[in-house]
Amino acid sequence: MAFQNVKGTRDFYPDDMRKLNWVLETWRRVSVRNGFEEYDSPIFEYLDLFTAKSGPEIASQLFNLTDRGGRQLAIRPEITPSLARMVNAKVNALPRPIKWFSIPRLCRAENPQKGRLREFFQWNVDVIGEDSELADAECICVAVDALREMGLREKDIVVLYSSRALLSEVLKSLQVAEDAIPAVMAALDKRAKVPPEAFAAMLAEAVPDAAAQAGIVKFLEAGKGGQDIEASIRAAGLTVTDAMAAALTRLEEFRKALGLLGIAEYCRYDTGIVRGLAYYTGIVYEIFDQAQGLRALAGGGRYDNLLQVLGGPKVSATGFGMGDVVLGILLEEKGLIPATAKSAALDYFVIDGEGATLEDVMKVVALLRTAGRVTDFSYKRQATGKQFQQANRRGARKAVILRAGGQLAVKDLASGAQKEMTVEELLKGA
Amino acid sequence: MAFQNVKGTRDFYPDDMRKLNWVLETWRRVSVRNGFEEYDSPIFEYLDLFTAKSGPEIASQLFNLTDRGGRQLAIRPEITPSLARMVNAKVNALPRPIKWFSIPRLCRAENPQKGRLREFFQWNVDVIGEDSELADAECICVAVDALREMGLREKDIVVLYSSRALLSEVLKSLQVAEDAIPAVMAALDKRAKVPPEAFAAMLAEAVPDAAAQAGIVKFLEAGKGGQDIEASIRAAGLTVTDAMAAALTRLEEFRKALGLLGIAEYCRYDTGIVRGLAYYTGIVYEIFDQAQGLRALAGGGRYDNLLQVLGGPKVSATGFGMGDVVLGILLEEKGLIPATAKSAALDYFVIDGEGATLEDVMKVVALLRTAGRVTDFSYKRQATGKQFQQANRRGARKAVILRAGGQLAVKDLASGAQKEMTVEELLKGA
Repeated sequence: MAFQNVKGTRDFYPDDMRKLNWVLETWRRVSVRNGFEEYDSPIFEYLDLFTAKSGPEIASQLFNLTDRGGRQLAIRPEITPSLARMVNAKVNALPRPIKWFSIPRLCRAENPQKGRLREFFQWNVDVIGEDSELADAECICVAVDALREMGLREKDIVVLYSSRALLSEVLKSLQVAEDAIPAVMAALDKRAKVPPEAFAAMLAEAVPDAAAQAGIVKFLEAGKGGQDIEASIRAAGLTVTDAMAAALTRLEEFRKALGLLGIAEYCRYDTGIVRGLAYYTGIVYEIFDQAQGLRALAGGGRYDNLLQVLGGPKVSATGFGMGDVVLGILLEEKGLIPATAKSAALDYFVIDGEGATLEDVMKVVALLRTAGRVTDFSYKRQATGKQFQQANRRGARKAVILRAGGQLAVKDLASGAQKEMTVEELLKGA
Repeated sequence: MAFQNVKGTRDFYPDDMRKLNWVLETWRRVSVRNGFEEYDSPIFEYLDLFTAKSGPEIASQLFNLTDRGGRQLAIRPEITPSLARMVNAKVNALPRPIKWFSIPRLCRAENPQKGRLREFFQWNVDVIGEDSELADAECICVAVDALREMGLREKDIVVLYSSRALLSEVLKSLQVAEDAIPAVMAALDKRAKVPPEAFAAMLAEAVPDAAAQAGIVKFLEAGKGGQDIEASIRAAGLTVTDAMAAALTRLEEFRKALGLLGIAEYCRYDTGIVRGLAYYTGIVYEIFDQAQGLRALAGGGRYDNLLQVLGGPKVSATGFGMGDVVLGILLEEKGLIPATAKSAALDYFVIDGEGATLEDVMKVVALLRTAGRVTDFSYKRQATGKQFQQANRRGARKAVILRAGGQLAVKDLASGAQKEMTVEELLKGA
């Protein structure tokens, strides 16, 4: 009878936990210094919160459960619906802009693949109640700040962005029916992930008209990696409408904001970025490793209607999510996990040498711990050689060897240098 | 359409989150300095892990779910089964003693009451692979260390302990059948929580013999708060058997260890402490507020058979769990939540005064944030008075007012004192 963890979930042994904590702590520290405040929601919600946001088909992608009263619940697959629910509940009491972040544990009932697990952590950074592109750009800036803090540079990562608002207007001008737009968006989002024939089939199902299909493909091709967005509109055989011009102005403001925030060199316009979820309304973006061998590191954008869809007033919102799984793969590939996150380490291991008692050991251990030093000792009274072995196994930096009468020696376990001192001197240096 | 969180769960708005984080960070810091390493397990496990440990009746107290393959899963109601599973999986590779801690999010499908929610955080500290009472005592020492760190003192909290091993021997001597012992333990654990008649009925159901019932009650009464444990055995009309003597010796060793660790004054023997769960084998304990108006703050003990029950070798183990809910109530009651955990605070709020541009603001903001200072600014270019309002609302300690030509003033928002300086001087002081 050997028990195992559920497929697609992870056990975090201390070696794994230190690496995870290094990522989570970096996310938290960077969020805070950028002026964001942390929140969290319960691990499960009433199912209807998720179906109200994403339609009934979402239920099959969730871990569903029921409470004792038979009400349907689900483990959160993302935190944005909970965020919207929480903000709606206090919408008049919360001063705007609301700049919040969270690092939720999320679960999705999907088949585990590389970079995609059933349980993961996801950093979420959102600005609610602010219409300006400065808010969108600042969210990206926070994401880049964290990635830079972890050692990733322009050569390693790229932020690809586009405008859902512009794409919607282009589709309308190509005579795509309003109710077909979500299906087109979903097809476009899959484009880079499926074979060309599969994409063509998806697109044809969403848009039966061949001319419209061709226009969409031309718009995408001309806009891929290009900075002349108007040219991509013309490439699709269209002229710039007033609504398109408005979307272009917002894109221009967004670009200026990226420059003001000093991250323009990380960011590139790319019509291929669409985001699968239906609720995005403006600028959308994804962050990739430059080699693009991996799934997106992060994705986000503006979702100005979601709070209203979930029963609140119309309040603009923008933000992103960044998971720990793809990021973890990239950081390992690049060798960026620091040594301190890789191995456990004690500051001190206290050993009872000749004439010292367990009582002496416990006193020194308590003093060092109270001084905040990571300290341990052997439960067994055994030969000092065995205790040194334990100290080394635990990665202790220094061993404290107690002698009779309160004298002690401190040994640096890396250099081997040893120094006699009193307890008072030890504590002064600790 | 107003969505709500599930009954018995909590939303953590930033004000709540700061308080929670203060508790979680204290637990983590204290664990680490006492030489424990952090681990975590998935939020759900295959249901049979929990039923193997606690019997099939546990399923009704869990949030159950199924994966796509129809396998039964459950959200973890405690982390100990996952800990045992993880240790068993690498039992020969892990050097002992294994000193691990975790701060899992746990869920139980019960009716919410004061101090008892459906979702909560629980600090777990365990030592695996160590037989000595020093390990049991050190776990308690870590718990007390954290409670002291939060400001609780001897007058506020008490650790009540007893010995399951001794109680088992007493029950055997009173002719209680081996297979009735778990039911007796469960009844004894409920004793302080139900009316006397209800306890009497539970006990009578577990032990039909009236003399045995009387003996149990006498043993409990004589041992409540008393330090003369042998007297409580005699009070039950029994003589001390060899097995009882062995349990008494271990209790004595445990007491000595509490003294060595400097926490004897926090601890008191009390036969009333039994712990409901079937898997405890030795010393057991619970930590209470001295007024005992609340449920236990923490509970734990030795469980030397669990790893074997879950498919591993026989490895001794001891540890405790401390939830955040009862602790949170006590800390609020005592006024111990520090001001820093109560209100958000920015270090700097950067304002564009006369002649300064958004570009100037963004430059200074980026410099301060890069220096690790918690810094924010207004997305809107508006009157400085409005920006000061926002700075105050965000609890900023200082406002930086930019002027044309790179000059600036720093205003202490508490004292009102204002000082002119350059960006370089600002950064030197930041």
